[in-house]
Amino acid sequence: MNINTPNWVKDAVFYQIFPDRFAVGKPDQKYPNHWQSFNLQPWDNPPTLQKYKGGNFWGVIDKLDYLQDLGINAIYFTPVFQSTCNHRYHTHDYYQIDPLLGGNYAFQELLKQAHQRNIKVVLDGVFNHVGRGFFFFNDILENGPHSPWLDWFKIEKWPISAYNGAFPANYASWVNNRALPQFNHSNPQVKEYIMQVAEYWLHQGIDGWRLDVPNEIEEEGFWQEFRERVKGVNPDAYIVGEIWTDARQWLDGNQFDGVMNYLFTAPTMAFCGGDRILLEYVEQPCYEPYPAITAEEYQQKIEKLLDMYDWEITLTQLNLLASHDTARLLTIAGDDKKTVELCTLLLLTFPGAPSIYYGDEVGLPGGFDPDSRRGFPEESLWDKNLLNYHKELIKLRHQYPALRRGKYQVLCAQEDIYIFTRILDKQKIIVAINNNTQAQSITIEVDHQIDQILFGDGTFSCEQENYCNYLTVGLNARSGLILI
Amino acid sequence: MNINTPNWVKDAVFYQIFPDRFAVGKPDQKYPNHWQSFNLQPWDNPPTLQKYKGGNFWGVIDKLDYLQDLGINAIYFTPVFQSTCNHRYHTHDYYQIDPLLGGNYAFQELLKQAHQRNIKVVLDGVFNHVGRGFFFFNDILENGPHSPWLDWFKIEKWPISAYNGAFPANYASWVNNRALPQFNHSNPQVKEYIMQVAEYWLHQGIDGWRLDVPNEIEEEGFWQEFRERVKGVNPDAYIVGEIWTDARQWLDGNQFDGVMNYLFTAPTMAFCGGDRILLEYVEQPCYEPYPAITAEEYQQKIEKLLDMYDWEITLTQLNLLASHDTARLLTIAGDDKKTVELCTLLLLTFPGAPSIYYGDEVGLPGGFDPDSRRGFPEESLWDKNLLNYHKELIKLRHQYPALRRGKYQVLCAQEDIYIFTRILDKQKIIVAINNNTQAQSITIEVDHQIDQILFGDGTFSCEQENYCNYLTVGLNARSGLILI
Repeated sequence: MNINTPNWVKDAVFYQIFPDRFAVGKPDQKYPNHWQSFNLQPWDNPPTLQKYKGGNFWGVIDKLDYLQDLGINAIYFTPVFQSTCNHRYHTHDYYQIDPLLGGNYAFQELLKQAHQRNIKVVLDGVFNHVGRGFFFFNDILENGPHSPWLDWFKIEKWPISAYNGAFPANYASWVNNRALPQFNHSNPQVKEYIMQVAEYWLHQGIDGWRLDVPNEIEEEGFWQEFRERVKGVNPDAYIVGEIWTDARQWLDGNQFDGVMNYLFTAPTMAFCGGDRILLEYVEQPCYEPYPAITAEEYQQKIEKLLDMYDWEITLTQLNLLASHDTARLLTIAGDDKKTVELCTLLLLTFPGAPSIYYGDEVGLPGGFDPDSRRGFPEESLWDKNLLNYHKELIKLRHQYPALRRGKYQVLCAQEDIYIFTRILDKQKIIVAINNNTQAQSITIEVDHQIDQILFGDGTFSCEQENYCNYLTVGLNARSGLILI
Repeated sequence: MNINTPNWVKDAVFYQIFPDRFAVGKPDQKYPNHWQSFNLQPWDNPPTLQKYKGGNFWGVIDKLDYLQDLGINAIYFTPVFQSTCNHRYHTHDYYQIDPLLGGNYAFQELLKQAHQRNIKVVLDGVFNHVGRGFFFFNDILENGPHSPWLDWFKIEKWPISAYNGAFPANYASWVNNRALPQFNHSNPQVKEYIMQVAEYWLHQGIDGWRLDVPNEIEEEGFWQEFRERVKGVNPDAYIVGEIWTDARQWLDGNQFDGVMNYLFTAPTMAFCGGDRILLEYVEQPCYEPYPAITAEEYQQKIEKLLDMYDWEITLTQLNLLASHDTARLLTIAGDDKKTVELCTLLLLTFPGAPSIYYGDEVGLPGGFDPDSRRGFPEESLWDKNLLNYHKELIKLRHQYPALRRGKYQVLCAQEDIYIFTRILDKQKIIVAINNNTQAQSITIEVDHQIDQILFGDGTFSCEQENYCNYLTVGLNARSGLILI
């Protein structure tokens, strides 16, 4: 079949925002509903599981200059709907933006201003489970077997116990967490409800949905219909699933446009980080950024990944180095900035949309949740070198279509050296990485003349001999070059 | 001060609808969000405290012909917002019409069609307390002391126990019912929140607010601001409070336009029902429809009531014989239809807007809640005589402005005989009641010539002697006459 994915995603550089922690702004007084909280945690204190810091959409609006300057042209927000948890995965109402974020008015204003800057906005769709206060579940909690909405959830036995852990919950919930009752997706009304939510926010102007744990919804045809309904409203809408592993089941062209590409994350970290990776931070998630791998093994994994999906899908994968669900790369790598730099170089030259987890670009550290969700630091604390590193690479990505859509071809993979090319029509770009702690020089055969270094410190020379081009690159210790 | 109340209320005949129990209609398919329940109680079964019967706004729309034919030109709905209880006093969301009622679309359609027929719509504002699933409370329940919204409710101690009765609730709730947490009205944000809700629905087109237990909100200036905000959106909006007793505190012209006038209900029942009133149904509420009273005592109470408030207020009181909070009059009177008729005659000729509790007009019986909230019966079960009795009286009330706005003056009160007149300019109407089980004849002096009987079976003659008019009325047993 002919697989179609949204073109804008192929050119996108995403920024992932955890809304409670990115920025606090002042409400625009022309809108009602400014519900200000007086029980917030100080911004710079270590985050906790339950406290709120009060980030909001007014703050995001204030930061649009910053994001645009960084080169961002798409934002993926972790959940923003009214929720009784600071991460907002406990949905209380799918039609309301959380009041602490500024409510629907603030979001509409953000959407308008983002779009004026050609920045797309993707929301997190948590359609597997809800919070205990979600109306249709709350009614069951209040009325027991007399609720009109019994078939919206999977009640196993009476009585249910939503808040008292001393008794069995007696209803299906996500990972058996009674705080997160699971929808009964085999109820056609539940399905229709979710489809209408998805359509509603597209009509409001969002550009796509990131889908939380979509593998949990196994109802036949569910995601196929989801795609039809979503694309029915906006054929260019992006659908990206949270699938950590081989996602072919969902990336057949009838469901998602891409997934959160942890299959890129893991080998990239394993190669660049090597033995610096702190196992305590990577044992839990189902991706495998360890043990350390060589360039040859990295090539194998990357080529396998690139072969896994249709090229149209590959170009709209959401590639990432960290997210709210992982520790931050800097911390995983034992604060080794070079690992972060090399991974970032590989991320920003890989096919598919790169996604930067808020704060990673300024060197914000963070272990597991809640530590990975710190308040975005003030400017005096930024790692400006790392920020510029990001800016330069993003700028190059926007400048050279080959970095976004060009064919990916490995030219050399030897121990610590990894060189590949991205080719689009006549544009041929070479990316070379040296992960060794010593500078290295290597000569490889290339099929074209190399003109200049686009990024990085190092040297190159290009010689023609017997109708062949030989490129010699001099790579500094643990660094990379981009050449054209 | 100059007291102003809405003119339309002076001409209104209200019909009070308990939405789950009035009528079930089919959704208009052009609207989304038809969440149909498959766990409803059969319509004609005795109602229970927790089950839903599934009445909805589509059903009310289908019944507008019926209501218009009855002469109704205003509807007061008990709560309609999304709620986790069949009476919907456990508000879950003040901005959503309950999905079982058809959601916001169905309500908008009802509002449009009611207004096309010049029928006003008043909603029940439950602003003292909320349900446990209400977002700002639910967040406290989920996050405890870490909630951003702590000061929206009155938390006394941690932990709170919202669902486990074995532990103290540790927060303020209405009548100590932990299912109904009480707002902290001294939080200016809570106040503003409620004001915005009130304004929102007025902007949506409703014609007024009936206020649930407004005496519970003792915050200084609260109801004064409420009036200002409400009248700021619609100067003609009606504000009627649920106050069962002397309401002068709220009827000073700065707060409500009227109250649910149980001070009319009680003596009217005590006079017409007498010893037929079944004490078991009237001991609990704080009105006193017993012991039996004579016409003289009735006159005293009525005159006291009429003296209690400014005439502008009296004309916009909400007069009633029963509500969802009482047993139905027919049942209270031991199924004595004559009591119902006489009370209805007094109701529909009294200054202030009469309100008919759905079903009372067709003889629906009902004890205390939940029995007073039965499904509206099918036509074959209607007491058609009683229905016509209502229709005729309502028609007369609409026809003769004196019955709505005329001065009220008692002409005779002797044991079982009660005669009064309503005078507006040259229109003078006489209402005569005989509550005796025997027919009675009585002659009284009147200051004008009587022309005809407008309502009721009986006789009259009018003689002039020495420049005086003497009216002799022949009243059948336990019946009334209206003359002009």
